[in-house]
Amino acid sequence: MAETSQEETSQPERVSTEIPGLDDMLQGGFFTETVNVVSGNSGTGKTIFGSQFLYEGAKKGEKGMVIITSEESKSLVREMKTSFGWDLKEMEQQGYISFVDITDPSLRLQKSVEIAPSELIKSFKKLVESKIEKEKPERVFVDSIEALFLAIESNYKLRTMVDDVFSVFRSHGVTSVVTVGTLFGLNDVVEYGADSVIKLERFKTGNTLQRSVYVMKMRGSKTINEIRVLNISDNGMGVLAQSPYL
Amino acid sequence: MAETSQEETSQPERVSTEIPGLDDMLQGGFFTETVNVVSGNSGTGKTIFGSQFLYEGAKKGEKGMVIITSEESKSLVREMKTSFGWDLKEMEQQGYISFVDITDPSLRLQKSVEIAPSELIKSFKKLVESKIEKEKPERVFVDSIEALFLAIESNYKLRTMVDDVFSVFRSHGVTSVVTVGTLFGLNDVVEYGADSVIKLERFKTGNTLQRSVYVMKMRGSKTINEIRVLNISDNGMGVLAQSPYL
Amino acid sequence: MAETSQEETSQPERVSTEIPGLDDMLQGGFFTETVNVVSGNSGTGKTIFGSQFLYEGAKKGEKGMVIITSEESKSLVREMKTSFGWDLKEMEQQGYISFVDITDPSLRLQKSVEIAPSELIKSFKKLVESKIEKEKPERVFVDSIEALFLAIESNYKLRTMVDDVFSVFRSHGVTSVVTVGTLFGLNDVVEYGADSVIKLERFKTGNTLQRSVYVMKMRGSKTINEIRVLNISDNGMGVLAQSPYL
Amino acid sequence: MAETSQEETSQPERVSTEIPGLDDMLQGGFFTETVNVVSGNSGTGKTIFGSQFLYEGAKKGEKGMVIITSEESKSLVREMKTSFGWDLKEMEQQGYISFVDITDPSLRLQKSVEIAPSELIKSFKKLVESKIEKEKPERVFVDSIEALFLAIESNYKLRTMVDDVFSVFRSHGVTSVVTVGTLFGLNDVVEYGADSVIKLERFKTGNTLQRSVYVMKMRGSKTINEIRVLNISDNGMGVLAQSPYL
Amino acid sequence: MAETSQEETSQPERVSTEIPGLDDMLQGGFFTETVNVVSGNSGTGKTIFGSQFLYEGAKKGEKGMVIITSEESKSLVREMKTSFGWDLKEMEQQGYISFVDITDPSLRLQKSVEIAPSELIKSFKKLVESKIEKEKPERVFVDSIEALFLAIESNYKLRTMVDDVFSVFRSHGVTSVVTVGTLFGLNDVVEYGADSVIKLERFKTGNTLQRSVYVMKMRGSKTINEIRVLNISDNGMGVLAQSPYL
Amino acid sequence: MAETSQEETSQPERVSTEIPGLDDMLQGGFFTETVNVVSGNSGTGKTIFGSQFLYEGAKKGEKGMVIITSEESKSLVREMKTSFGWDLKEMEQQGYISFVDITDPSLRLQKSVEIAPSELIKSFKKLVESKIEKEKPERVFVDSIEALFLAIESNYKLRTMVDDVFSVFRSHGVTSVVTVGTLFGLNDVVEYGADSVIKLERFKTGNTLQRSVYVMKMRGSKTINEIRVLNISDNGMGVLAQSPYL
Repeated sequence: MAETSQEETSQPERVSTEIPGLDDMLQGGFFTETVNVVSGNSGTGKTIFGSQFLYEGAKKGEKGMVIITSEESKSLVREMKTSFGWDLKEMEQQGYISFVDITDPSLRLQKSVEIAPSELIKSFKKLVESKIEKEKPERVFVDSIEALFLAIESNYKLRTMVDDVFSVFRSHGVTSVVTVGTLFGLNDVVEYGADSVIKLERFKTGNTLQRSVYVMKMRGSKTINEIRVLNISDNGMGVLAQSPYL
Repeated sequence: MAETSQEETSQPERVSTEIPGLDDMLQGGFFTETVNVVSGNSGTGKTIFGSQFLYEGAKKGEKGMVIITSEESKSLVREMKTSFGWDLKEMEQQGYISFVDITDPSLRLQKSVEIAPSELIKSFKKLVESKIEKEKPERVFVDSIEALFLAIESNYKLRTMVDDVFSVFRSHGVTSVVTVGTLFGLNDVVEYGADSVIKLERFKTGNTLQRSVYVMKMRGSKTINEIRVLNISDNGMGVLAQSPYL
Repeated sequence: MAETSQEETSQPERVSTEIPGLDDMLQGGFFTETVNVVSGNSGTGKTIFGSQFLYEGAKKGEKGMVIITSEESKSLVREMKTSFGWDLKEMEQQGYISFVDITDPSLRLQKSVEIAPSELIKSFKKLVESKIEKEKPERVFVDSIEALFLAIESNYKLRTMVDDVFSVFRSHGVTSVVTVGTLFGLNDVVEYGADSVIKLERFKTGNTLQRSVYVMKMRGSKTINEIRVLNISDNGMGVLAQSPYL
Repeated sequence: MAETSQEETSQPERVSTEIPGLDDMLQGGFFTETVNVVSGNSGTGKTIFGSQFLYEGAKKGEKGMVIITSEESKSLVREMKTSFGWDLKEMEQQGYISFVDITDPSLRLQKSVEIAPSELIKSFKKLVESKIEKEKPERVFVDSIEALFLAIESNYKLRTMVDDVFSVFRSHGVTSVVTVGTLFGLNDVVEYGADSVIKLERFKTGNTLQRSVYVMKMRGSKTINEIRVLNISDNGMGVLAQSPYL
Repeated sequence: MAETSQEETSQPERVSTEIPGLDDMLQGGFFTETVNVVSGNSGTGKTIFGSQFLYEGAKKGEKGMVIITSEESKSLVREMKTSFGWDLKEMEQQGYISFVDITDPSLRLQKSVEIAPSELIKSFKKLVESKIEKEKPERVFVDSIEALFLAIESNYKLRTMVDDVFSVFRSHGVTSVVTVGTLFGLNDVVEYGADSVIKLERFKTGNTLQRSVYVMKMRGSKTINEIRVLNISDNGMGVLAQSPYL
Repeated sequence: MAETSQEETSQPERVSTEIPGLDDMLQGGFFTETVNVVSGNSGTGKTIFGSQFLYEGAKKGEKGMVIITSEESKSLVREMKTSFGWDLKEMEQQGYISFVDITDPSLRLQKSVEIAPSELIKSFKKLVESKIEKEKPERVFVDSIEALFLAIESNYKLRTMVDDVFSVFRSHGVTSVVTVGTLFGLNDVVEYGADSVIKLERFKTGNTLQRSVYVMKMRGSKTINEIRVLNISDNGMGVLAQSPYL
């Protein structure tokens, strides 16, 4: 029979999401050592969410790690600089943020079409494990998870492998933000394995495009059960105490 | 010709669901020795339902067993402690609740991608059978069933195996709560095999997220034919004598 | 050229459905020697319908046979006793109702995953044929047909085999009630092969769950073209001369 | 280059549908030597339509042929007698109506699961050809076409074979009514190959089930572009000069 | 690098559609040497559109060619004569219209189920090419394209082959009207390869069936952005300067 | 660990879209060296968008390249001349615009059905790379991308190859406009890999067809969150400061 360890029952700490207004919706932020999925279509602001989570944490001295999984995530550094003036490079030089780019050829982990997808995920797990052990980040941001999992066609394998990857983060004591897009319904499976799910939406209302956010689930915590306006300004992302569809 | 045994026709007893307000909807609780499915999306409160069913039963001296089927169910003990102050660990130490974690390597039943899925289910049945015979629980909570069945691709096999697994619980005299998510429509098949189905929902109304509950079916019993508000407070889950969509 | 036999043109007799109010909708009940499909989701009352058809017939001295096709149908005897006080066991002892449980191992017809599905259906036909010839029931209730047919993946085979199984009932002069669920659209095919189709529904209206019934088709008879409320009380199922959605 | 024959350009004659009110919608009935598809769900009255087309024609001295393709169509003779008093048997004895039942074992054309479906259709064509040449009917009623075609899985083969079967009827100078159900969207393909398509519908409006009819297409003719009420009384089927949804 | 030839930049001429009111919607008719797809369900008037395009052109002395691809298109000559008095036979005798019937056995191009579908399309291209070179039509009407392409199951091949067939027409300087039905979404692919797309619709409004037309796209031209009523009278098809849904 | 280079953090320049009113919506135009997807159905104006982007750029002295991927894109030169008077030929002769037509047989890159689709894409990448290195365009317009990718059936390969092709453009410092249609949902995948996505729509409102445009995403930039009217006149395409659906 499985033994449940002593620390499982101690009161867990919270980590700020660094998104003004969102900690309130979560009654205090993410739990430490949990996997928190940010789910939304292309263009809803997932990358900004994760970058803000890391950058603002780093400013407070909490080490962060960005895990980049595909070509188009590589421009993240530049985009955050121009959009909000967040200098992730500088943070890297000061030792507060480290980068793991799994598309980097020197890592020999290229998303090759020739490699079996489950092999790629195993290599990914090993690489992430060693990087986390070396850099010891408190916060991890994966941008984004779907590039890894699109190759898995069996629902069962998919569910099992999401469990496996997420347990790497949990077992190393990091608090992670993992973004996932809605291509092919992959987010449905990823959300099932998460400790919390934040949903970002962008939709037409009349002739306007509006952003909103809500907490789809959060294990072990009460949450505010409202859909709220998500605002992006020169200072980054924030939740307004106001509802969309006005 | 099949003989129907004497006890099949005796008046069956009821077991409280331990969810305030729900026993009324079921006209007295679950029937003993039945399989009761709790069905809902990620974030609707299925784990809280099952934990409350076990914990409150244990407080009354009825032995319970939790069957954990995947990585993310493992944090259940901690979550129930922080959310509601339910100390399942303590209950375990006092002998009122036992844990079966099928992801525990020492059980040699790992959800390996390499094992044929029907073999896994056979092993699961055998393990559960021996654990139930050893621990003799009155209440069993499976969190959650879909991790087992996602690997089965034939509708026919799926239906047959759900029947098989459920008959293990029925034949050992336990009253069980089995949660199932709605990924890939798997819940449709699981619900067909159940003695009762409780549906949990969480949905947007305007800019609010609301929880509701209704009894989709209950074999051999009348039920209250209403959709009611499901409330989660610091004391756990309860049904309000009130309808949603206000 | 096919010859049509003399008796095909004689005026067919009617058999009461035993559901108060439903015979009126059918202008006098089912035709004798026909296959009557009762179609609906899990929890709509299909098992009650078939049991009432048999039990009330048996009370009038008409022999009945229940054909059980899956594990969860086995509790039918107990459920009817506790819900409505119908003692099918007693009826069996008095020789009015016989049971055929195809999941009974002694019949060597187990729904084994190893047996080819079309073989299973052939064995089922043979077994049912011999049981009907031995017991000579006037009424047969199959609960439920989908467990047999879920394994058939070709639309064509499915249609052909439904035809085959239904012709066993027709050719032995029994009037049968066959229930079918709506999993995977299987009911669409089964309904095409039936002489009549009764649809049972349970749906949300506002915050209430309501039951309704209508006659989808009845070959060779006029029917009342209305959707009516289906009521389940301590005495069983009945149709109200009243429409739902009020 | 293909030569078009002289008679193709002569003014085609009309054949009454024998459904009161429908000839008006078609501006005079079906064209002779055409294939006319009657399309609708189970229970919409397709068999009544075809039987009335044949029976009323036979009363005027026009020879008819019924082609029965599956078990459940066999009860057509009995149903028409009890519902409307149409004695197709008597018409057969007087030589006005002949029956071709392709499920008759003596024809050695059994819808065997073992025979390749395209072989079955070839045999069907040959059989129908020889029967038509022997009996020389003016009207043919096929009840129903989908049993033949459900086995064909390629869209292309399906389309080609519908073309082939329909050209048998056209080339032998008969005016045919072919019924088709809406299982698996098969009707879409069959309708494309037809000279005219009559749609029968039965739908819920409030708490009533209503029947309607409209002309979906008719090659070479104007039609009345209205949806009208279809009424079934003791005398058969008729179109009311009235619209449904009132 | 590809060289673009001199004549590509000269002002293209227009060809009247011969549908009163439609040239206005296209700002002057089709461009010469383009492929113009007419897309709509069964019964929307696609065959009338193409026949009118050819017949009225022939009356002005412009040679036309009809390409018939399936059995049911063969009755086109008779239908146009009876419906509108258009004598395509007479036009053929006067040398103004030629027919290519690819179902004609003497062409040895039978749509055989045995021939690989891509072979059939290659043969079709060759045949059409030689016929066009021999007859030198200015206008071509293909009724209809889907019979050729239904056999192609790969999206990629389908797209490539539509490109190939359309380039035969473009490269021989003919202006073509190609009809396509909406079976299996085939029209989506065909429309992508076309120079213009005219959509014909027939839909229920209340208890009436109404016809409408609009220009979905036209490369290189402005169009009137309105949905208009399509009227079919004894003189053929015409567009009313009026909108449907009134 | 991946090193992020110095220039990634410098302020990126903007390139005008040349569509009046659109630069405002993007807060200044596209970023240089990005891949900008223009997504919409057949007939929404994607080709005009890309041509205007190139032509107006060339008029200002910025070299452009058109990459043509299928037969029907070849008429682009003629269409732009007749519709708007844009003489791309003349621009080519003056050295401002170059053409790469991958359907040109002399390139030996024919979209052959025989070549494996991933081989075709590799050849495409190599060809485009060499052409860009030779011609050194500042602006590239691909019309359209879906012809290349329709052959890829695995979601994973598709995503990976879109990444690969887009990185060719990014790594050579060109600013590219890539059009994609909505066939088979291919656009969903292409949009995920893009730096910005502009959505063009054409839809029925009442009896009118209206054009609209909105910015679905733009990495690293604020955008105007409105749906606006897209107008096509004799001078080309422009965005009105006005919303559709009036």
